[in-house]
Parts: sequence; C-alpha cells; structure tokens
Amino acid sequence: MTATPANLVEPRLYKGLRDLSPELALARESLMTAIRGVYERYGFAPLVTPAIEYLDVLKGAGAGEEATRQLFLCRGPEDDAIALRFDHTVALARVVAQMKRSDQLTLPFKRHASGPVWRADKPDPGRYREFVQFDIDAVGVASELADVEVMCAMGDALSACGAGPTRMMFSSRRILDLLLRFAGVPETLELVHADGRKELRTASDVFRVLDKLEKVGKENVRLELMGGYVDKSGAKVPGLMLSAETTARIESFLAISPGRDATILALRSLFSNVEGASAEIDVLARMSDHLGARGFGEDRVVLDLSIARGLAYYTGPVFETILTDLPRFGSVCSGGRYDDLVMRFLGEPIPATGASIGVDRLLAALVELGRLKLRRSASDVLIAVLDQALMSDYIAMANELRQSGLNTDLYLGTAGLGKQMKYGDRLGIPLVVLQGGDEKARGTVTIKEMESGRVQATRVDDRKAWLSARPGQLEVPRSDLSIALHRLLGKSSAS
Amino acid sequence: MTATPANLVEPRLYKGLRDLSPELALARESLMTAIRGVYERYGFAPLVTPAIEYLDVLKGAGAGEEATRQLFLCRGPEDDAIALRFDHTVALARVVAQMKRSDQLTLPFKRHASGPVWRADKPDPGRYREFVQFDIDAVGVASELADVEVMCAMGDALSACGAGPTRMMFSSRRILDLLLRFAGVPETLELVHADGRKELRTASDVFRVLDKLEKVGKENVRLELMGGYVDKSGAKVPGLMLSAETTARIESFLAISPGRDATILALRSLFSNVEGASAEIDVLARMSDHLGARGFGEDRVVLDLSIARGLAYYTGPVFETILTDLPRFGSVCSGGRYDDLVMRFLGEPIPATGASIGVDRLLAALVELGRLKLRRSASDVLIAVLDQALMSDYIAMANELRQSGLNTDLYLGTAGLGKQMKYGDRLGIPLVVLQGGDEKARGTVTIKEMESGRVQATRVDDRKAWLSARPGQLEVPRSDLSIALHRLLGKSSAS
Repeated sequence: MTATPANLVEPRLYKGLRDLSPELALARESLMTAIRGVYERYGFAPLVTPAIEYLDVLKGAGAGEEATRQLFLCRGPEDDAIALRFDHTVALARVVAQMKRSDQLTLPFKRHASGPVWRADKPDPGRYREFVQFDIDAVGVASELADVEVMCAMGDALSACGAGPTRMMFSSRRILDLLLRFAGVPETLELVHADGRKELRTASDVFRVLDKLEKVGKENVRLELMGGYVDKSGAKVPGLMLSAETTARIESFLAISPGRDATILALRSLFSNVEGASAEIDVLARMSDHLGARGFGEDRVVLDLSIARGLAYYTGPVFETILTDLPRFGSVCSGGRYDDLVMRFLGEPIPATGASIGVDRLLAALVELGRLKLRRSASDVLIAVLDQALMSDYIAMANELRQSGLNTDLYLGTAGLGKQMKYGDRLGIPLVVLQGGDEKARGTVTIKEMESGRVQATRVDDRKAWLSARPGQLEVPRSDLSIALHRLLGKSSAS
Repeated sequence: MTATPANLVEPRLYKGLRDLSPELALARESLMTAIRGVYERYGFAPLVTPAIEYLDVLKGAGAGEEATRQLFLCRGPEDDAIALRFDHTVALARVVAQMKRSDQLTLPFKRHASGPVWRADKPDPGRYREFVQFDIDAVGVASELADVEVMCAMGDALSACGAGPTRMMFSSRRILDLLLRFAGVPETLELVHADGRKELRTASDVFRVLDKLEKVGKENVRLELMGGYVDKSGAKVPGLMLSAETTARIESFLAISPGRDATILALRSLFSNVEGASAEIDVLARMSDHLGARGFGEDRVVLDLSIARGLAYYTGPVFETILTDLPRFGSVCSGGRYDDLVMRFLGEPIPATGASIGVDRLLAALVELGRLKLRRSASDVLIAVLDQALMSDYIAMANELRQSGLNTDLYLGTAGLGKQMKYGDRLGIPLVVLQGGDEKARGTVTIKEMESGRVQATRVDDRKAWLSARPGQLEVPRSDLSIALHRLLGKSSAS
C-alpha cells in the first residue's frame, strides 16, 4: 500500500460516464420511489435481470443494428461472447421465452424493471453511456386495454414525479401501415444516392423519414419522400422517389391536427376507402374512450398521427411524452406494442405492450425546470459537538432522535463550531442542535434553524445586534428536544 | 422479425447469473428500502458511481490480486482498458481523490452506495457473478467514533430487515500487529513448500492463517503456524515455521474468550509488557463504552480476537456479523477501517471506515429462515372481469381504488373467472372484487378474501354447501367498496 508519485494512479472517470452527487442521487432516488409506487399501484411487480447477457440474446433484438453497434462487450473467464444490456426489454423477452418453454408462464404477466443500461454512444454533454430506465410491460394481452393501462401508469408516474404539465402523443403502427396502402407506396422503393448508386429500401423507410418531421420540418420531409434535397451542411439527402400523388396523400395524412375526437373523425374521412381502416380506427377510438374514463383528457393525451417511433419492433399503438415546459428535451417516456417480442426465441408471437421512463433524462429536465428540491443530505438535524467531554450526551441525543424517526447526523470530526455550521449549511441540514457545558448545567439544548437564521441574518446590519438577537435560534428543555425538532420540521413523532 | 426454427436464438442466462423472480425482487426491494432508511437515519447520503471503471483504477486496489483476477473486462468503442466494478469502495476512493484534488472535498463525508457488483468467480450454487452490496463509509474521521457509528448503523439496518438475532464480532488490525510483536513473529517468514522450494512471506501471512480458524479449526491453525500439515485431500499445507514459543503465545491470544469487559481485561493482562498496547486497547474499551451507550450490549456485539478479515487493506477496527440462527451462511455484513483508501491515488492517507451488507446473501438467509413474507405481487386487490360489457365500470373501480392508495390489478386478459381466480391466487393478491350484471343491478360488489376463502373451503366437505355458504365472500354497496377493502386490509384510506 505504499505509493510514490511515480506509481500513483490517476483518479478519473471512464469517458461518457458520470458520478451522481448526493443531491442528484437523492433526487433520482425520490423519482424512482415515486415511479415504483405508481407502477405497483397499477399491479406491476418487479422482475430483476442481470446486467450481462449472452451476445446472441442481445444481438439483432428488435432494436436492430444500431443497438448492436452500441453494445459494451465483456470478457469473463470462459471467453463466452457476452455484453452489457442496452435496455430492459430484451431480457424480458428472454425470461418470457424461458418461462414459456418450461411451462411456468402465467399470463397476463405484468412486470416493472429498473436500473442502468449501457450504450457505447459517442459521449456528448448531457448524454451518458450509462443511464437508468424504468420500464413496465404487460405481456399476454392483445387488447388495447393493456396499452391504455400502460399509458395511464406512465402519465400518473410522471405526475407523481412532480413533472408538471406533460403532453402524451399516441398513434399506431397499424395506422401507418394503412397509410402506405392509402398513399400507394410501392412495396419496395429504389433509393438513388448522390453518386448514382441505387439501393432498395422497404416501405417502412417511409416511417424513418416521417420520424424526422420534428427535426427537419415538413418541407424537408416532403422533399425526402420525393427527390431528396441538399441539407444545410451541403450533404445530399437522397429521396425515396415517391410520386407527387403519393407524397400529397402522405401530406394530407400529416395535415390532420393532433387531438382526440376531431382527429379520429378526420382520419375516418381520409381513410374511408381504405380496406381494414375502420377496425383499426375503432381501436384508436376505444383507446380515447378508455383514456377519458380514466381522467386522461385531450389536455394531456392526444392522438398525433406524426408519431412514428424510430424502433422497428413496434406492432400496434405507440406513444411518447414531452414535458410541456421543456419540449426540447424530447420524449421522457415512450413505449408501444411489440407483439413479436419473443419471436426470435420461440418462433411464435406473444402479445405485449410496454413503456419506459428515461429516469436520467427526466431528472435532468426537472433540475433544469427547478422542480426538484435539491439537498446534499437527507438529514433533518445535525448534532454539533461543542465539547468532546460531552460526547456521550451527544451520542444519547443522536440515539433518541434517530429512534424518534429523525434523520440525524452526529458531527464526527474534531473541527470547531464554525466549520461544523458550514458543514451543516453545505449539506442543507435544516436544524442544528447545540449543547455546551452551560446549557447542560441548565438542562437545556439550543436549536438553530439554518435557513431562517440565514434569512434573518441578512436583514440585520449590526453584527452585535444580530448576535444578541440570535435569529432562528431557540433554547428548549433537553427533555423536549425531540418534540421541538419534530414540530419545527412539521413532522409527527414516531416515538 | 421473421424467425424460422433454424435461426431461433436459445433463450438462456449467462453462467453464474440469475433472474430475480417478482417475489424475491419484492423482498429484496423491501430489504433495500429498510437499509436505506436506517443509513439515512444515521446521516449517510447516496453517492452513485458507474458500473464501469478504468482498469488501472480498479486494479491493485486494496483488495489485491484476487479481486483483479475476478474482474469482468469490457470493451468500448475506443478500446480503453475498462472493467466492471467488483465492489463500491474503489469507486469511493476515486471520487474522494478527485474531490480532494479539485478542492471540493468537505469532510466528514458520509455516503451510502448500493447496487450490483460483478466478480468472475467460478459459478457455484448460491454464489452468483452479480450480486448487490449496500455500503456505508465515513471518510475523514480518524476517531473510533466513526467506526462505532458504522457498526451501529449496520446493526440497526439488519434489525430493520427483520434479520432476527445477530452477532457482530469486532477486533482491530492494530491489535493483530501488536500480537506479532508480543509473539515474536519475525518480520519476514520463510515458507517451505512440499517440493522443498522456499518462499519469503511477510508477517501479515500470520493473519491469513488466523483467518482460516473458523474453517480448519484451532489444531490445524497451530500446525500451519509451525511445520504445516497434510489436509484431508492429502495435500500438504506448508507451515510458516514459527517457533513453538511464538505459536504458544499466539494460541494464548486466541484462547481469550469473545466478550466485552472481560475480554478487554484479559487482553490487557496478556499484552501488559507490549509497547504501545495500552493505547490500542483503550480504543477497544472506548468502542465498547460507546456501543453500550447506544444500546449494543454484549448480547449483540462482542470483541472477538480471532477476527482477522481476509482483505489486506484494513488498518484499524474490523468487524463481521453472522445471523445467530444461520451461522453457516457466514458474515452478512462486514467492514472496518481503511485509512490508506486514497493512498494509491494521492500518495497520502485520508482516514476512512466503512462496511457493507451483502444484500443477496442476507436475502438468501432470510428466505431460508422463513423470515420474509414472499409474494409474487404487491397488489392489494384484483378486479375480476366477469362481463366485458361492464369494462368501463371495472376501469372506474380501478381508478377509484388506485386513487385511494390501494395497489390494484385490473385483470387484462379474456379468460374466465376460474382462471382469473387462479391468477390472483398465484400472485398472492389477498382480495378479489367481483361485479356481474346482477350485482350491478343491485348497486353492489362482491369482495372475495382469497386466503380465508381457501382456509374455510378446505373445511367444507359438501361442494354445494360451500357454494351456498360462500366462505370468505361478502357483498357490499358499490359506494362502500374502497372503505370495505381498506378495512379488510387493515389500512387507512388515503382518500
């Protein structure tokens, strides 16, 4: 354990990662507790899967090639091909497939899952390679009831986090499939690159283009559907070469305003001649009714036909959610139906729908909006050490207060009172208990209210007057200490 | 997304890992919540560090070569040498060193840390490559006050987990150093292998031998201190070649019975002529006093001089804890002082003490002892779907009950009542709410108590009588539903 400057190790974080300071860790913990509470209120129970999975289990999962490129590979003693999970959904699919095979699967299966996931993205400010997602999934229910249940749980969870006004936007992959038919998009598309090279694309590439709507705007989407365009950087964005009529039909679809009843009416009218459209639009109408019955009106949830979701594996309703006051943070909570979940493992579908809250993104947004009370400590009270000889008294106080339900920090160092007060202040501990020899002789303790003391002190010009007035400070009988602290904190005593 | 039997992926867990079923996940969650509550009661706040660290930050950390061999290496896009953490302490040292360098370290720094750690051990039944530890550490306090604070927090945390009677055993690395002097152990030891090969060992190898006491017994420890012995498998265990007198002195030390005052007295007497012993024994005596003042008597915490702790990095008090009713599970909670924590990074010491609860080991022990209420769901009530036409009524009920604070599962599938009851039973949901057309017409709902219903039903021989008696079943006005459920569950209503 001896170290010379020559063999010292540089203490540093791996790139793209961060430590969560106590104040952010406490805030994230409170978000997770709120979310978990709501998920369990809705009947979801936790299922915990490990961080490491076999590479072939992770690879080629619905999320596609992009997720595969982002994997952190690992090496264990046996040199198996393994990697860190990039989401919680693949593991759910594995577990469901294993349970199904061993005949242990009782459906519906409603689970929640939380914890870090890892993606080897390019490190970017505010974008980390490890981040926490908190998912729910309902497996085994084909009906849109389950989708609505998931959406409502998500909405309630965001409310419980104090997220303020949110806007949830939903649509359906099946409606987009109908759009292809309505617009007359050919089954395969020939994509022409800038260098004249040609490439075959499938109709679902139309969705990929629509997904850019928010980012590039309507006009560029229109151009990309047709002949392509040159973007601001001067790069040629190749077009899908759709006909003017097909593009116009897609535009008429996108022109339908987000809403509920009116949106559904407009869609019915637009798709009136499309085979199979009526049944699919009925699903959206029933979802809208169910949402309304649960108190999720048009002010919170809208049918927005421009929602396409990037991921390839959705098969039915999809949705995403923005914080109304901070739309540029993007979706903090997204999900949808993915009935092909276990297809890769079992060769047969099992209906499933689910969603995920990006807890770290939500945390960052709420910090930016000032919606979280940030504190470096969960302590209610700090017991200062004025006299080392009275240590056993301080310890007895700490014992008593902790047993009464107060989070109590006993100052463990040997610093003077000034440093101890600074410590309490830095940690945001609201109350400090002081007892010196005089107070002990009188059978009392002094309680200092940090916040009010500071507020009042700034109003006092004369330092001497301040010292005699002792703002935010009160002396109480030792026997009343716990009750007095509980009262100041507005808490009921557990003792 | 199409899959043929030929390209199906086998759904399977990576070796040495496990999934935590909802019942174990719920139980572990409740343990973590209880532990966190106690830690924060003691003034510790969370610090979250990532799972991945640079290899040189992890390597050669106090835990030594064994931990390094157990690392799961990772590969990111830049091919840096990185690996998964094997404990929470190395990351704490890194953070403290970084904060110290950037002048942001306020001491004392009391943090807690939880989450999985990874070790590439040989997979063994009950031994996993990913497991959860829940640590506390107090950095910046040289006094034994901090050690006692950590020990008491650990003791209270185990109590809060419902661990039942526990036995915490403490000692001190410094007392063991004094033992070397007392016994006359030479600074370096010559170890002779079976093939005659000689090896130099340091005096601390004596600790490694003492650490085996529990496992191999006193006689084998005595033999290993001297000439070595042949174990049951026929393998030669080389001896440290200590003299008979030195070995006898070590034995007289080990012969002191675990306890508190009596143990300290016996130790004072044995070490009466050892230079520096008095001050170190005073530390143990003060720890005993502080523990007593906090209500940790000899029935829960003893000074046990045979405790050596395997890890090389401890520098002062050390302790470990067993469940009195399940000693063979070993220590569920261990720790100690490691003042050289940041030495590798800064070249200077910062005092620190800490401990860790092996949450997964504790969970396994409490399951084995039957001390945990295991349920597959956190739901209080299941709303059965008797008639799809009444779905909006069921949804309204679910809304109302959830808002009143009840964890409510709405049956989402299309199965008949029998399957729905089986679902509720399997998940351990205590109450089921039933409303068919008749009940709706009467303005009532039926509540079925699952557990009592089952108990009573087994006592009824005649199935017809059972059906008419409807054990554990009651019909209440629809408007009283929430109140009735709260009453049956013994919960106060939030609405």
